[in-house]
Amino acid sequence: MSAYALLEAHFAQLNALEGAQSILHWDSEVMMPSGSVDVRAEQLCALAGIAHRLITDPSLPERLDDASSEDLNVWQRANLHEMQRQHIHASALPDALVESLSHATTQSEHAWREARTNNDYKGFMPHLQRVLSLVREVAARKAERLSCCPYDALLDSYDPAMRSAEIDALFSELEGFLPNFVQEVMEHQRTHVPYMPIAKRVDIAAQHAISHELMQALGFDFNRGRADSSAHPFCGGVVGDIRLTSRYDEHNLIEGLYATLHETGHALYEMGLPQAWRTQPVGKARGMSLHESQSLLTEMQLGLRPAFIRFVLERLHAHTSLDSALWNEANLHAHLTRVKPTLIRVTADEVTYPLHVMLRYKLEKALLSGELPLEELPLAWDDAMHKALGIRPDCVGNGCLQDTHWAGGAFGYFPTYSIGAIIAAQLMDAACSALPNLDGDIEQGHFTPLYAWLGEQVHAKASHLSTQEIVQQATGKSLNADLYKQHLTKRYLP
Amino acid sequence: MSAYALLEAHFAQLNALEGAQSILHWDSEVMMPSGSVDVRAEQLCALAGIAHRLITDPSLPERLDDASSEDLNVWQRANLHEMQRQHIHASALPDALVESLSHATTQSEHAWREARTNNDYKGFMPHLQRVLSLVREVAARKAERLSCCPYDALLDSYDPAMRSAEIDALFSELEGFLPNFVQEVMEHQRTHVPYMPIAKRVDIAAQHAISHELMQALGFDFNRGRADSSAHPFCGGVVGDIRLTSRYDEHNLIEGLYATLHETGHALYEMGLPQAWRTQPVGKARGMSLHESQSLLTEMQLGLRPAFIRFVLERLHAHTSLDSALWNEANLHAHLTRVKPTLIRVTADEVTYPLHVMLRYKLEKALLSGELPLEELPLAWDDAMHKALGIRPDCVGNGCLQDTHWAGGAFGYFPTYSIGAIIAAQLMDAACSALPNLDGDIEQGHFTPLYAWLGEQVHAKASHLSTQEIVQQATGKSLNADLYKQHLTKRYLP
Repeated sequence: MSAYALLEAHFAQLNALEGAQSILHWDSEVMMPSGSVDVRAEQLCALAGIAHRLITDPSLPERLDDASSEDLNVWQRANLHEMQRQHIHASALPDALVESLSHATTQSEHAWREARTNNDYKGFMPHLQRVLSLVREVAARKAERLSCCPYDALLDSYDPAMRSAEIDALFSELEGFLPNFVQEVMEHQRTHVPYMPIAKRVDIAAQHAISHELMQALGFDFNRGRADSSAHPFCGGVVGDIRLTSRYDEHNLIEGLYATLHETGHALYEMGLPQAWRTQPVGKARGMSLHESQSLLTEMQLGLRPAFIRFVLERLHAHTSLDSALWNEANLHAHLTRVKPTLIRVTADEVTYPLHVMLRYKLEKALLSGELPLEELPLAWDDAMHKALGIRPDCVGNGCLQDTHWAGGAFGYFPTYSIGAIIAAQLMDAACSALPNLDGDIEQGHFTPLYAWLGEQVHAKASHLSTQEIVQQATGKSLNADLYKQHLTKRYLP
Repeated sequence: MSAYALLEAHFAQLNALEGAQSILHWDSEVMMPSGSVDVRAEQLCALAGIAHRLITDPSLPERLDDASSEDLNVWQRANLHEMQRQHIHASALPDALVESLSHATTQSEHAWREARTNNDYKGFMPHLQRVLSLVREVAARKAERLSCCPYDALLDSYDPAMRSAEIDALFSELEGFLPNFVQEVMEHQRTHVPYMPIAKRVDIAAQHAISHELMQALGFDFNRGRADSSAHPFCGGVVGDIRLTSRYDEHNLIEGLYATLHETGHALYEMGLPQAWRTQPVGKARGMSLHESQSLLTEMQLGLRPAFIRFVLERLHAHTSLDSALWNEANLHAHLTRVKPTLIRVTADEVTYPLHVMLRYKLEKALLSGELPLEELPLAWDDAMHKALGIRPDCVGNGCLQDTHWAGGAFGYFPTYSIGAIIAAQLMDAACSALPNLDGDIEQGHFTPLYAWLGEQVHAKASHLSTQEIVQQATGKSLNADLYKQHLTKRYLP
């Protein structure tokens, strides 16, 4: 066997182990009895240890070198590059650091849950301090290997080749645009968009049936995936065996439905990755920004389009006895596009959401560099929130303790949410140009043209190209916020 | 760390990997989308390969030696013995043989499914031939390491320390007893036991509710286990996270209920194993005979007792609108204890079941030794069936192709079913002596005294003692068939 073929076998084994971890993680969230946490932790820890040994195998650099001198096609060469990238990220960290971080984040996530409930920032701070100093060490070590600044080194593990300089430029454009825009939209909606509350009890079985039907219409392959419920919706499993979850509430049909749309966007990306490269690094989704672009394209770009709202209403009325005086296109559209500042990111609307993200992006950079001492985080958060949205948290639970990301050591993750939203706007614009009858199809529930286009332009590329290259090739434009601003203006200030 | 402590850590890791495999196996049977078979096979194969490397680690013999000279308590010493046993079984086989067998049995099981449907013994024979010659090699290699005959070497992996000489003695006693007994019982039932068919549609949701209630009453801990449906009922998962499945048929309430009882017996054994030894070889269930004794004690010894039938009927009438003229103690008892020769083992009654097992036991020994050529298996089977039960298979699908065991390479497994039945009779007899109010408790649905006794006498012993020692200590008698014959006589010829 060639050096390259041996590497493929090595990474296929790693892929199988990671797949096992992923299914077991899904099982923990969806199926596992509550008393089995300790047993599962042992299993996941054993698998993580073995996977870590495989990816940090000290023979890899030489084998990668040998393979790179072999005769390879462009996908194989890109695969080699991804193998190297994974090896660098993993081997940059000594085992002891990986273990310390894993231990610290487990404890810190546990402490965070209590602290959020009790609004106890003081009690949580020592945990965050411990995580932050370990994350700093991670960032410094990776930065050295990747020849970039520490924050970019963290970012790189969520969105390869994305750098904060590019994000700074995109976000400063949004910062110049959004605050005034939010005010204008709110004024417009107050005066021009009538809005009637639509809460009504819809039983869970009917919600399941509707979600299942939507997923099927969007192209989710139930032969290679399944849908369940969990406390927090997520899209897990592995390529070839996707495990999507949503959350259903009798009194909030919309939330469950749009959570399903969001996760289905993620799922369709995974399902559209090239089968032939399924077990290899180059066959994986490109990164979290592009992943989020796929979920937001489905949830927001598609989900809030009038044609889609007409389609959804038709399905809702087929399954339920909802009142047409409230559940009609105008009122549902008004409901779904309602802009209102909120303290909580996960409940934010499409327009104010990036303000939540940018706030976190600035603060986490300042925390990482040490510019912002941890003692000052709650006040800095509250001030930034007030500046961005004109509202001030009533407690830390609704302020800097609302998200689990930092407690879990995920610094560098937040910006991918809004980069995803920007990319989604660019992709939807290009899809509209490529598919002249798009809205007609959507209203009829024919989503194949849209997802076939996304499949070809995005999903099939896997990690063969960078996020920026994929956007450029799919849209003919570089990654930029213009179409995102245009999209918001067109939808919210028509 | 001591050599012993290091070995515990090594085997705890092995246990975690085996646990992951077990949960993934359950997922394959119960949750996995049908198109994901290939992805799952990769995961299980990777895990099996890593587990195999851990258990065959060439440093183990020396480390086991070192540990045995350390100061150990009796459980630790027994643990060392079990570690050694597992290592001997695994390392007796070269990797190539393990792989060949795995490959051959996968193909053969696939071929068996088709052959059984098509009654095509000729088409299946080459597959069975391949499996059999590999199993012979396995048996020969293990026999050398275990210093026993080849068949006993296979038996040892299902029931450690059980030997065919002991089984021969037990089975020859049953052979002298059962054939006449079956005739007498049938004659007795024909003339003295009125019997009315009780089939009636009971919807699956009600069957689930009844099964759940029975499991809870028997002591199944839903905080450390769950219950689902699958094509073939089984008890899987790991200690601390038990995954039980049953099969429900609208038109066969009894079958689903008693499958649940059977699997719950297995589950309660696993749930009663000592927590402190959960990750270690000595903490595992002792073997398949003792395991089957626990399932049969619940399904047959307990499940067919009049007091239990009264309890079950009370629960059935609470959940359903079954006709009391048919669903009463006398008729349900008559139904559950009906003796009637059948061609198919899995549908056989309590009395004729051992005849099916003994037939297979004789034939598989003859196949392994070469005494019976594969060409002659169908005829030998049919003749033996006719001799044992007076009926002759109409086709190989109802004859020698009915079971998956041989196709899967599981030679040496069959006798454990009937050893289990014998042990169950001994244990139930001892439990009755120890618990004078047993039937009163059973009728009230109080199963704690019975399972607490079993927990102490059997479950808590794990693999600290041999099957024979556990039976001796629990019952005061050596493993023997007397009480089993007494039990059958008392129940079937009252």
